[in-house]
Amino acid sequence: MRFYMPAEVYEEENCVLRHARDLEKLGRHALIVTGRHSAEKNGALRDVQAALESSGIAWTHFNEVEENPSVDTVMRARALGLRSGCDFVIGVGGGSPMDAAKAIALMLRHPEAEEDYLFDAAAATDPLPIACVPTTCGTGSEVTAASILTRPSLKRKGAIPHAIFADLALLDGKYLLGAPRHVLANTTMDALAHLVESYLNVKATPYSRMCVAAGLTEWKKCKDVILGRREATAEDCAAMLRASAFGGMAIAQTGTVLPHGLSYALTVYTGMAHGKACGYFLRNYMAEAAAADREAVLAMADFADLEAFEAYYCATCGRDDVPADVLDRSVRELLENPAKAALAPFAVDEGVLRRIAGI
Amino acid sequence: MRFYMPAEVYEEENCVLRHARDLEKLGRHALIVTGRHSAEKNGALRDVQAALESSGIAWTHFNEVEENPSVDTVMRARALGLRSGCDFVIGVGGGSPMDAAKAIALMLRHPEAEEDYLFDAAAATDPLPIACVPTTCGTGSEVTAASILTRPSLKRKGAIPHAIFADLALLDGKYLLGAPRHVLANTTMDALAHLVESYLNVKATPYSRMCVAAGLTEWKKCKDVILGRREATAEDCAAMLRASAFGGMAIAQTGTVLPHGLSYALTVYTGMAHGKACGYFLRNYMAEAAAADREAVLAMADFADLEAFEAYYCATCGRDDVPADVLDRSVRELLENPAKAALAPFAVDEGVLRRIAGI
Repeated sequence: MRFYMPAEVYEEENCVLRHARDLEKLGRHALIVTGRHSAEKNGALRDVQAALESSGIAWTHFNEVEENPSVDTVMRARALGLRSGCDFVIGVGGGSPMDAAKAIALMLRHPEAEEDYLFDAAAATDPLPIACVPTTCGTGSEVTAASILTRPSLKRKGAIPHAIFADLALLDGKYLLGAPRHVLANTTMDALAHLVESYLNVKATPYSRMCVAAGLTEWKKCKDVILGRREATAEDCAAMLRASAFGGMAIAQTGTVLPHGLSYALTVYTGMAHGKACGYFLRNYMAEAAAADREAVLAMADFADLEAFEAYYCATCGRDDVPADVLDRSVRELLENPAKAALAPFAVDEGVLRRIAGI
Repeated sequence: MRFYMPAEVYEEENCVLRHARDLEKLGRHALIVTGRHSAEKNGALRDVQAALESSGIAWTHFNEVEENPSVDTVMRARALGLRSGCDFVIGVGGGSPMDAAKAIALMLRHPEAEEDYLFDAAAATDPLPIACVPTTCGTGSEVTAASILTRPSLKRKGAIPHAIFADLALLDGKYLLGAPRHVLANTTMDALAHLVESYLNVKATPYSRMCVAAGLTEWKKCKDVILGRREATAEDCAAMLRASAFGGMAIAQTGTVLPHGLSYALTVYTGMAHGKACGYFLRNYMAEAAAADREAVLAMADFADLEAFEAYYCATCGRDDVPADVLDRSVRELLENPAKAALAPFAVDEGVLRRIAGI
């Protein structure tokens, strides 16, 4: 068994401004990678720019990362970074900008490489230094080695084979304060899926489960916020961000399993938000696991039973009617990905997958 | 708050032999650093040499690390490493060889530096690559940044100001199988002190307490072995080693506090084993902490109350009569170390320290 999570994590109020000196260690010209608007709206971009300016670090801003970032986006960002002479990358936002930032940092080191480099498991994994500033509370990408990219030409979404950790992760719950409730519902559902899929996983160890236990301790504090029973406080936001980071640390050890594997087709073909799509399969995934493990993980998340979880999912994310042909595609794509199926702590065949997909 | 523990940890049976390829990434000529006999006796040295040979890596063996390694030892090992052309260091054994290995790796990078370099907080911390193979279950040095050295000229023992993590930690419980019970008692008491001092610490965070909770879950499994009620199984040994590693990860975030700070004089002036010396102050340290925190940490370690812990300490380590002038020296030395005292989660003055020292 293995434990490895080399990112230096800081978590506190005004974290980015307080750690300008740590950014200074990464380079002299940052490529800031964000989506179109959110990093601006939640204040994270302003903090990053202020921190860089206070340290005399130059920056160039690439703000074109879409949800489920494509390889084309990575290549365009590299071109901008090369033109500008960037020597490190800062991903600011949700999973999409952070995942893109990792891939961009790798491609910046290889200015001549074609996009195939990203998918070449034998190629060197030697990215430029990377910092991540998460502004949503689901992905945990700031502490995982994963970079999930979409290849439009193949209509496929999946992790690239390079394991790329950020060098520095700067966590500040205040960026969540203005987030709409449905965004928090989706992203915290993604974090829950990470924690549950890491716990119910053949690669689970006392090291990964340490992260799961810590994550669920934080996660369960915020249910009432997601259910709309009270407003999120600064403390809630910190807890949600921390739950997401612990979930990231957990899947950095084990990987995700069936709910994530099945979710990608839902997102690609119906546009369903990522966390909601993972949550779609979570009840039935837990139902297939050994009773003792299922009960342990439900108890840590403070759910009495599977139906209590299902009620929470319906109340927070909403259970959509997904067309049977899309679910069918989810199952077929997962069958083509035996490495994912092999992480489930029970035998997986088409019948099991169809049960989990509810078809 | 911060979480940082960049060592790559592997833990499994025959771990060293299985990860020869990972050693290969560190260099071409290893300086193996051990004590005089134990690494030979418990089989770890043989495994390390076999792994190196299978990967075609040269090695030179320095086997002169004493308990509480001195700066002189570090300097002699550097001289041997320089003569032999070593480009990385492997510490094999308990805390002493691993702590020494870190300091040696730093001094090997600076062939001309005097021993003062080790104590110069402003000097660069840029050691050669380091692997650690723990063969006792107390120090956690394989996952901490600490290197505790003794300066005979000053009659002082303490951490050097350089934060040095191993790159690779290879954990195999089998090296504990033949350890005498009093050694296990001392070393697991050190691990317990790490876990308790990290929990009852102003720098405690959800990140550090995650490690404490995981560590105490493993630690409490092995009480009956230490109490002599049953023989240690391979599983017990793995759990003890893991408890020690989690304790290391915890103090890597928070540092140790009063029991460790008070213990050094006991070791220097009476030769008391390190874990036993830390445990000497542990009951009274917990007694000073807030009731809720004390009860939480006692419960995680499966002790009903302070007296249950005290009974365990007496039964496993034995409570020695320590001369009052030595305890007095412990207190005075700690008063000269306000940084250590500041980590206690309560106000510390001479009166408090004398209560904890029982004088």
